[in-house]
Order: sequence, then structure tokens, then C-alpha cells
Amino acid sequence: MEFKSKIKTIEWVDTYSKMVDQTVIPYEYKFVNITSGDEMFNAIRDMIVRGAPAIGIAGAHGVILYAQELAKQNLSREDFVSKLVEKAEYMKTSRPTAVNLMWACQKQIEVIKSSNSDINGIIEELKFNGIKLENEDIQINKKIGDFGAEVVPKGATILTHCNAGALATVGYGTALGVVRSAFAKDNTIQVFADETRPRQQGARITTFELAMDGIPVTLITDGMCSYFMKKGMIDMVVVGADRIAANGDTANKIGTYTVAIAAKYHNIPFYVAAPLSTIDISIKSGDEIPIEERSREEVTYINGKPICALDGVNVINPGFDVTPNELISGIITEKGILRPNYIESIKSLF
Amino acid sequence: MEFKSKIKTIEWVDTYSKMVDQTVIPYEYKFVNITSGDEMFNAIRDMIVRGAPAIGIAGAHGVILYAQELAKQNLSREDFVSKLVEKAEYMKTSRPTAVNLMWACQKQIEVIKSSNSDINGIIEELKFNGIKLENEDIQINKKIGDFGAEVVPKGATILTHCNAGALATVGYGTALGVVRSAFAKDNTIQVFADETRPRQQGARITTFELAMDGIPVTLITDGMCSYFMKKGMIDMVVVGADRIAANGDTANKIGTYTVAIAAKYHNIPFYVAAPLSTIDISIKSGDEIPIEERSREEVTYINGKPICALDGVNVINPGFDVTPNELISGIITEKGILRPNYIESIKSLF
Repeated sequence: MEFKSKIKTIEWVDTYSKMVDQTVIPYEYKFVNITSGDEMFNAIRDMIVRGAPAIGIAGAHGVILYAQELAKQNLSREDFVSKLVEKAEYMKTSRPTAVNLMWACQKQIEVIKSSNSDINGIIEELKFNGIKLENEDIQINKKIGDFGAEVVPKGATILTHCNAGALATVGYGTALGVVRSAFAKDNTIQVFADETRPRQQGARITTFELAMDGIPVTLITDGMCSYFMKKGMIDMVVVGADRIAANGDTANKIGTYTVAIAAKYHNIPFYVAAPLSTIDISIKSGDEIPIEERSREEVTYINGKPICALDGVNVINPGFDVTPNELISGIITEKGILRPNYIESIKSLF
Repeated sequence: MEFKSKIKTIEWVDTYSKMVDQTVIPYEYKFVNITSGDEMFNAIRDMIVRGAPAIGIAGAHGVILYAQELAKQNLSREDFVSKLVEKAEYMKTSRPTAVNLMWACQKQIEVIKSSNSDINGIIEELKFNGIKLENEDIQINKKIGDFGAEVVPKGATILTHCNAGALATVGYGTALGVVRSAFAKDNTIQVFADETRPRQQGARITTFELAMDGIPVTLITDGMCSYFMKKGMIDMVVVGADRIAANGDTANKIGTYTVAIAAKYHNIPFYVAAPLSTIDISIKSGDEIPIEERSREEVTYINGKPICALDGVNVINPGFDVTPNELISGIITEKGILRPNYIESIKSLF
């Protein structure tokens, strides 16, 4: 039985990209149409769209939008190609940590460089490729979900951190794809969702999308995970990834590393669920993954009001952390579950 | 050199208890006067006053307030004593986890039961004892601070969770008492404060009181601790305690246990700072400590606005967790630093 999610996070529509505005969830569930390349750059940077696989697709769409704009400038084909590649490279820089963004923009660059068509033809090929990446994303997620479901015990409670769900992808999810596939087989499983400060993407987005799809979910704050692990209430942890190094070290939303340490201490399996496009074999270990530093206000303000003394208080706000491979029980991909030694198991797939 | 804090959290004034209203920090720093026993019960329950040592003093003040009320009822001395002891027992139930509350109310019950005075005399003795407990609390905190300061490395960054500061005590702090004493000797130390969801007492109260006293403080979210530990940016952890069992297992604000596991993983010393009145030798281990379950709204609402989907989302909100003795490097008390084996070192003090 296949699980049907109600959510389609991002999709190309004729001449623009249509996406769920994730900054207003759970208060509103509304779509925005992104009609220019710069608008897409800002939408990624400002996290109207977020989640490593989703911003990959957003980046691919952004390249199409830039192509449409450049096509109006009466450029030679050669100038068009060179300026478009420049724009695609620029699009890669809209956020630094998730590698899927660079991967998807690079896929579009390959389309541009290998095309034999005229300018309009190139645009058609970019659209075709963008839609192909969209559809592949859902298919890949379903495969991840199905492989992952095999290691979910009957009636399991699955802890997750942040949102690696339908709303982090085109529409099914990586970590929550595992949950959806497992739930389709066994509707007695349930999810514990970490709030995931700052930005509360677990509270805002994960609880929202699971409730929307009718999957039981319990919200906890970030410090509580060990309490429930000790009580035997958590059977496994599944999280997404923003970038995985060649040795399996995994960058994901800040706080993931703390959960992984707690899982290890309680002997609870800790899985990462991610497409192969999240694996960056060009870097040897997590030490090489750039960690985005985000604004002070994400920590000091919630719902528009300060939560702390503002004068005389310093803030550091890393957006991600790196979970070392020794804490990871398995990496669930569309080609199966990778197990330690990750240097070997990852190498065998590339 | 002694550190002078600007903060006096709670004090008995003639016929009432004057306390800082901790629910409005950091937006306001204002005092409320508590003039009846039931008002005090509610002030403790609703966390206008919080922090294990501070609610101990509040409980002692509450017994005086009940005594003043009963004195107006023309009771026989015998009836007065029996009703007052009943009220003092009731006051103990205003919150379940912190043992200092039961301890301080019991101290007042001992005054009542051992007194040879008339009703007015008993009230005077309760006031005398209440003020004595207040003064002792500050003296005890300073001793804790001085013992603790000895294990703070030069230029250390100290991570703390929740608020075990001046605002959790009468005016100096336990964990932050260690910080204050260390800072008086070496003003290059600094504090990292966990936000401490839910209720954000780290963000709201710890940053506020340290900024007020001019001690450098950096606010981080609860999931970030491991990230900074791995970077070598945290030299030690010091937290307070709500109840310590005879084997050293320590109940403290939810999230403490997660920090302790992270500290162990990174080989960073993890200290508990608490007066002997926090040690409950009547219980063998942390398993016997009752854990307060608090309201759903503390998790789902921040600053009056929901942070998650509300329909179809379950919430569990334990107020405390228990850190097992194996994760604790030392318990800093007014009699010195207790070290493992805690069963032995605690027994030797009682």
C-alpha cells in the first residue's frame, strides 16, 4: 500500500515556480509564485523554501527563471550561455551548507553546456530537466521511505529533529518519507518531533505536515529527548541531512548532533535519510562542511518579541552541526541503507 | 574580593513577603508583595518565584503569612498550632519536585512544634526563623560559590542550563554563585547560557541577571551545546538542582540530563551546585523523585502565540529530568565539593 501525502511543496508551472510559503506555517498554508531569478535567490536565502532537497529543486527552477530573463535581452547564443552559467553559479551561493542546491544548479549547468539548441531550445531543455528533477525527487524519496520502513520496528516511536519531510522536498520527505512508508504498512507507529530551536521547524513544519497527513505526532522541546529515551519511549531516531561527507559525517540542522549523542548513550539506533545528491564525495570529512552562521534575531526573538535581555547579551547562531559517522547506525538512500564503514559503503555507490 | 550582586530575589518585610516577579523578566524588573498564605501558594505554583532555594524561602514566608491569618481567628493555642501545621503541610504541595520547599516548610513546622510561646510569640519565632533562613541562604550560596570557584579554570567558559542564579535563591545563586565567585577572582571567565525551553528561563532570567551584574554571557539554544563542546569552546558545565537523591542522582530542569550526556561524550566536567537542603537522603536514587508534569501551553505557545499546529498534535511536558550520578563530576555544596562515590560522600555529611 502506498502512502498518499497531501503536500506538494514546489512545482514548475509553465513559466514560474510555485511553492508553499514555509515562513507562515502553521498559521497559513499558502502558495507563492516565484517569477524571477533574483526572487528565487531571496526565497532560498530567506527560507520561504527550505530543506536540502527542496532548495535543490528551487535552485534548478531559479536557473530557468534567469534563462527566461536573459532570453529577453537580445544576446548572442554564446553570451546567453556564458551569462546564464554565471547566474547558475550565483544561484548556488544562496545558501552555503546544503549540497543539493549546488548539485541541482550544476545539473542545469550541464544541460546548458551540452545543449545544441538555440536559446529557446535551451530554455525548453532546462524546463524539461527541472520537471524531471522534481519527479525524480518524489520517486527517490519513496525509495528512501521504502528502504527505511524495513528497519522501523512494529509500533515504533520515531524521534525526528527539524523537518526532513514533504515540506523539505518536493512532496514525500526523506526522514518523514521513512515515516510515511512505515505508517502505510503499520499505522501503530508514531512520531516524536523536536521543536528545533531556533526557527522551530520541528514545531512549525513537522507537526503541521504530519497532522495534515493523519500521522500521530507528539511535540517535545529540544532538551527533552534524553528524558524520553531513558524512559524507553523512543525506538529509533531518523533525521535528514544537508550534506554528507565521503566518510559519512553528516551536516544537519543545529541540534542533530546532540540528539545523536543522546541516542548513542541510550543504545538507540540513529539513522540519516537522504538522497545520494546530498552526499558530497569531494570532501573527506565533516570538518570541511561550511556551517552557515545565521542572525542573532532568530535566537533572541520569537513571534516578534524578545525572549531575553538584549543589552549585554552575546549570541552565536550556527544553523547546522555535524554528526560524526561513529554515531550513525545507517544512511538510508534510494539505493539502500549504507552501513559502516561509510568510507567503503559510500565509495561503492559512486 | 567579594562579588556584590545587585539582586535580592525575596525578602521578608515586617508583615509580608516581597519578591521579584519572575514572570515578567526580562521585560520588567518589578517587585510584588505577597500578603496571604494562599497568595504565596499560588505565587510558587505559578512561578512568580522559582528556583529550588528561593521557593524554599517562599514556603517559609508562606507559613508566617498563614500564621498571621490564623491569629485573627480567635483560636485556642492548640487549635492554632494544629491548623498552622496543616497549612504548612499544604504549602509543601505547591510544587512537587524541589525538595527545598518541603525542607523549609518543615523547618517552620519544627519551630511551631517546639515553641513554648503564645500565638504572637510563635509568629515572632517564625519570622525570626524565616529571616534566618534568608540570611543563611546567601551565606550558603557564597560558600558554594567559593568552593566552586576553585575548580573553575582560568579564563573558563562555563555552560549553564536554566537559572540557578541570584534569582533562583535569595540573592547570590548556586551555579551562578560559582560564576560570581570565580568572576570576582578572574574577570576573564564567561558564561554560555542555554535558552532552556520551555519557559526560556535561561534566556529570560540567566542572561538578564548576568548582564545586570556585568558578567559576559552568550545565549545559545538547547540543541547547540554539543556543537560548542566539540569546538572546544566550553570548559565546564555547572547547573543547579531541584532534588538530589542519596546516591547523587540529580533532578534539575528538563534538558539538564541531555547536557550532562553531551558533556560526558566530550570529557567536559559537569558539576551540580546546590545547598545540602537540596539533598533528600530519604530517597535512594533518582527513580524515586516525582517529576512535575506541566501544561501543554508552555510548549505550544511562546509570547502568546502558538508555535505549532494545534490540532492533531500531542504534547508531553515534564518539568524536570534526572541526571544519573555517573555523569556528575562533583556536587558543590556549602561544605565542600562532594565527589564519587556519592553514596559514601553524601552519607558522610548527614
